Amino acid sequence: MTDCIKEKGIAIFNTNYDEEQLNRVMPNKMKTDIVEKNLEVWTIDANKIAFENGLGRKINTIMQTVLFKVSNTVPFEDAVENIKSTIVKSYSKKGQKIVDANLNAVDQAIKTLKKVDTSKIEIKDIQLCKVMRDEYFENVILPTANQEGDKIPVSKFELSGRMPTDTAKFEKRAIAEQLPDWISERCIQCGRCTMMCPHAAIRPVIVKEKAKRPKAFTTKKAYICDGDYRMQVDTLDCTGCGVCASVCPVKALIMTPSEQIRDREIANEEFLLTLPDNTPFTPNTVKGVQFKKPYFEFSGACAGCGETPYIRLVTQLFGDRMLIANATGCSSIYGGTYPTCPYSRDKEGFGPSWANSLFEDNAEFGFGIYKARKNQRENFINTLKNTKFSAKIQEFVDNFLKNPENHPNNKKLILNLKEYKRRHLIKGNDNYLFNNLSLITSPSMWIIGGDGWAYDIGFGGLDHVVASGENVNILILDTEVYSNTGGQTSKSTPRGATAKFNLTGKTTKKKDLASMLMTYKNVYVAQVCMGANPDQTVQAIVEAESYDGPSVIIAYSPCINHGYSMDQAQIHAMNSVKSGYNTLFRYNPKEKNPMHVDSFEPIMDYKDFVQTENRFAILEKLNKKNKSKLLKQSEKDAVERRKTYKEKQTEGDRDKQ
Amino acid sequence: MTDCIKEKGIAIFNTNYDEEQLNRVMPNKMKTDIVEKNLEVWTIDANKIAFENGLGRKINTIMQTVLFKVSNTVPFEDAVENIKSTIVKSYSKKGQKIVDANLNAVDQAIKTLKKVDTSKIEIKDIQLCKVMRDEYFENVILPTANQEGDKIPVSKFELSGRMPTDTAKFEKRAIAEQLPDWISERCIQCGRCTMMCPHAAIRPVIVKEKAKRPKAFTTKKAYICDGDYRMQVDTLDCTGCGVCASVCPVKALIMTPSEQIRDREIANEEFLLTLPDNTPFTPNTVKGVQFKKPYFEFSGACAGCGETPYIRLVTQLFGDRMLIANATGCSSIYGGTYPTCPYSRDKEGFGPSWANSLFEDNAEFGFGIYKARKNQRENFINTLKNTKFSAKIQEFVDNFLKNPENHPNNKKLILNLKEYKRRHLIKGNDNYLFNNLSLITSPSMWIIGGDGWAYDIGFGGLDHVVASGENVNILILDTEVYSNTGGQTSKSTPRGATAKFNLTGKTTKKKDLASMLMTYKNVYVAQVCMGANPDQTVQAIVEAESYDGPSVIIAYSPCINHGYSMDQAQIHAMNSVKSGYNTLFRYNPKEKNPMHVDSFEPIMDYKDFVQTENRFAILEKLNKKNKSKLLKQSEKDAVERRKTYKEKQTEGDRDKQ
Repeated sequence: MTDCIKEKGIAIFNTNYDEEQLNRVMPNKMKTDIVEKNLEVWTIDANKIAFENGLGRKINTIMQTVLFKVSNTVPFEDAVENIKSTIVKSYSKKGQKIVDANLNAVDQAIKTLKKVDTSKIEIKDIQLCKVMRDEYFENVILPTANQEGDKIPVSKFELSGRMPTDTAKFEKRAIAEQLPDWISERCIQCGRCTMMCPHAAIRPVIVKEKAKRPKAFTTKKAYICDGDYRMQVDTLDCTGCGVCASVCPVKALIMTPSEQIRDREIANEEFLLTLPDNTPFTPNTVKGVQFKKPYFEFSGACAGCGETPYIRLVTQLFGDRMLIANATGCSSIYGGTYPTCPYSRDKEGFGPSWANSLFEDNAEFGFGIYKARKNQRENFINTLKNTKFSAKIQEFVDNFLKNPENHPNNKKLILNLKEYKRRHLIKGNDNYLFNNLSLITSPSMWIIGGDGWAYDIGFGGLDHVVASGENVNILILDTEVYSNTGGQTSKSTPRGATAKFNLTGKTTKKKDLASMLMTYKNVYVAQVCMGANPDQTVQAIVEAESYDGPSVIIAYSPCINHGYSMDQAQIHAMNSVKSGYNTLFRYNPKEKNPMHVDSFEPIMDYKDFVQTENRFAILEKLNKKNKSKLLKQSEKDAVERRKTYKEKQTEGDRDKQ
Repeated sequence: MTDCIKEKGIAIFNTNYDEEQLNRVMPNKMKTDIVEKNLEVWTIDANKIAFENGLGRKINTIMQTVLFKVSNTVPFEDAVENIKSTIVKSYSKKGQKIVDANLNAVDQAIKTLKKVDTSKIEIKDIQLCKVMRDEYFENVILPTANQEGDKIPVSKFELSGRMPTDTAKFEKRAIAEQLPDWISERCIQCGRCTMMCPHAAIRPVIVKEKAKRPKAFTTKKAYICDGDYRMQVDTLDCTGCGVCASVCPVKALIMTPSEQIRDREIANEEFLLTLPDNTPFTPNTVKGVQFKKPYFEFSGACAGCGETPYIRLVTQLFGDRMLIANATGCSSIYGGTYPTCPYSRDKEGFGPSWANSLFEDNAEFGFGIYKARKNQRENFINTLKNTKFSAKIQEFVDNFLKNPENHPNNKKLILNLKEYKRRHLIKGNDNYLFNNLSLITSPSMWIIGGDGWAYDIGFGGLDHVVASGENVNILILDTEVYSNTGGQTSKSTPRGATAKFNLTGKTTKKKDLASMLMTYKNVYVAQVCMGANPDQTVQAIVEAESYDGPSVIIAYSPCINHGYSMDQAQIHAMNSVKSGYNTLFRYNPKEKNPMHVDSFEPIMDYKDFVQTENRFAILEKLNKKNKSKLLKQSEKDAVERRKTYKEKQTEGDRDKQ
């Protein structure tokens, strides 16, 4: 940021850090610039002022004031007078309260703006990130982060174009202004907080070792196994979105200014990293899966993102054998923005393989990966059957061939074979096995994308892949709008919702993708909503993966584009089901009656619900004339969809008899 | 054909023409080549020999024999001996009958091969085609047909890249070996023959003028109006497929060797061309629509094609105001192979506009045409409302603005305005109207393609267009296989059917496209089968066009790829419904219960039916092991689809109450 600033230039930091804290967190490059270029540095906590004056996250008035103060381009008194009269002119229509809030904010900005004493800046090597740096970090991530990517020699990249996973962990951002503080006495160990965390930044742990705990490492007796339970926040990766606190049914997490608890919690985290991974419970439940390692950690998704919890959950269940084809969209951006990748590996090196293709061919791309891998593995198994190995290796092979789909056994085999290779010289036929170790793994194929991909641009391919009857799993992160490209309505957008490129509201109904796919009758289809029913979400994902055929999970995902405060994202998701806006079900062709509607009759008014989303509420301003007609039709659409699902269930019951 | 042949080369014509007839039909270019290059010319009627020996259309043995006879590359006796022993070797497995048939064919080939006396060839201008030649014919069609397209100057083409329609009529092929002979006493005037004719080559006429009729112009009293009724074959455009004769419920058409009736019928046709067009009856029925002019005439589709009758029918109903977007596939090849186009114009110049786009974007292409035209026309109407015209023109405009959707009135208006323009100088504002005359027509938008387009490659776009809710009509010519590209299975191919590129039979079920589209609830969807129920076909097309929203007609189309004799194509189509292979219905969102299943419960065995198609029957050879399992599943698929449609109807009845 300070790289291009001129000699004696002025920098304003919007921060809640004081001088000493700033000195601690500023990268050395920045400190050097400040000192060498003799910069003038100011700080202001604009977010605090905005929040305290009821302006939410809107800091424009405050920063404008500060800019005029420090830049001296016009006499400051004149500037303030102008700003204030403009506030009165612009905001009067919104009421005196908004006007006063802005005027107060201007005054407070002037009062709290501070000049930093740059003579006190110390330049020394600071490392927020406790994760071991590796070669890739030093050679690629660090120069790229410093905007010196053009200086990385080509020789530092893999010839194949592959990049390592498990690298987002290096990007410790520490951006949370507030962190969840765990009140152990209240916690009921339900796991909802960790289930719905978008950044895998709050996790439970069962501790058995008593001795070495830091003083602040409070715990409570675990309910589901021996040992002590603790919910640990990851202070550097947490974005402070507040979802965990909002979904806690017993208010056991209190959002607290970061500076009050960060240092304490960093010590706790360091202790936690010394503990072994453990999964004390069957993973196929919300209570159980919370203990499993996520293979998707610390992505750069928006604070409060409704998509990432689904991906994280899938990786917790199948991450150590996942192949992922990812469509373009938000999930491709936070899934693999150069130079880091949030898909991660465990201590033994297992983790998902991830690749990104286009909007228009991702289903086919994943299908190709699946078919290729299936073929390779079939050939591999046939070759093993028809090859004579040395006695010791033959034992391994026979063990594998007993059941090539036994994943835990396969994992052990791979580790044992790797260990064997370290101790022995591999000769003759045995080489074939060691050259193809990765084919031992029985892969779980996942094709992931958003509604713009699945309902629109990639739908033709999705339909084609589903029609193949092959065993692929498709996860649709349904935000009901093109989120990443800036707000175009998709066919998933419900009637009446506005979007940046559809300001008067969508006039056609939401496409019933689930019903279309169910016409194949041999496709597993589920509609899930984590905030409303995390148990059903886990169940659907487990069923989908185990179904030997195509599976599609349509996962309702709250999104910043919907227009509500993202700390309430999952509460909002819950209400979407309560109001009948969303209907949850699982259609499992393996069962006698394939259709199970999992959500109850609506108990909340549809129109009251949609009014809580700005994309609907703003119709009042942008299309007042048609608002009530659109919302009425929108409700009718949702009622009809629910009726269709219920009828399918009734039909199934009739057929069963 | 004779352009590249060497001096003193040898040409063999497979023809049923004798020397005199040949002299009549050979183009002058060919005659000149024969004389100037001193060619040796032989004729053989290989088709007749093959047919008489029960070899169907297989002429390979015959032509091989002839080739050795005239070429003298090896001693002919040795050649015959070799051919005969190879026949015994190759065909013994197929039984003695086939062996004998081939041996006889060889002998007859030797016996009936004739050398043409080329000294009798007369070079003079012959014109089989009575249609008036125009500039485009002389400048473009003729040189192209003579394979001299590279000599056409660029100046002969329209700058826009457009080509005229109504030009396939110039390509009089006269390829029918047999023509339908009409037995007037038997005819019940039902119109099935003309309805199912793939080439618009047999048409009824009502004659009121008594005086000038040719002697052979037999008629019978018309049942539905005053005048005399006659069913007239078009001898030069008829392909002799035999569909008309096979679908006649009273055997009033007898397939007869062409040479016996061609000359007589040409005289009748010439008389017919002098008669005025007339439509004595409401066109929205099979009996009525037969009298309407087809705006799709004499395409180069296969003899017996099951697709073209649907297109012809749609043009009879709406051709004088149709815009057509055509996907790649058979329908784009016979729809617009350079340099001619079978879409035609009436005497007043009205007729469809046609354009072809790709497999992957045809629905979008048509949608774009529709939206552009809709916008243009709305602007046009608004401009007319806000412009002052001269007194006389204002009368025209007011007349138009009374109801811009009144198509018959609009047609009259356009003709009157054109007439007015011939007599007056157009000035001032009046110019706007005359520059935009074509916008007076209220267009009927049709998006046409096959199942490879609609079910597979273009499905994403089709779905997107349908979801728009706009008033477009989509006609899917469903042959259940990629016909034009050579036989790949599409998602429309039923389970168990083989195709050239899927020899062991499709293992996945036919996609239920109709059910997918019905999930939108505001899309008109019909499944039709002309051979089974032409009345339902007409009704569906009329309803689809009048529905103010997206309409999709899935038209089951017999195809040469299915493997049966194409003269039986429409009888076969009828059996497809009798056996429950196809279910006919109309889903009309305008009605209280939108769903009407139009076909009765099956009365024919499913497996018996599919056995009549070689694509299924050949499983016996190519996949004997799985045949019965595949066919059982295939039947189950059809039963399930029917059940789904019936249930939808039952649901609709429940909702109505």
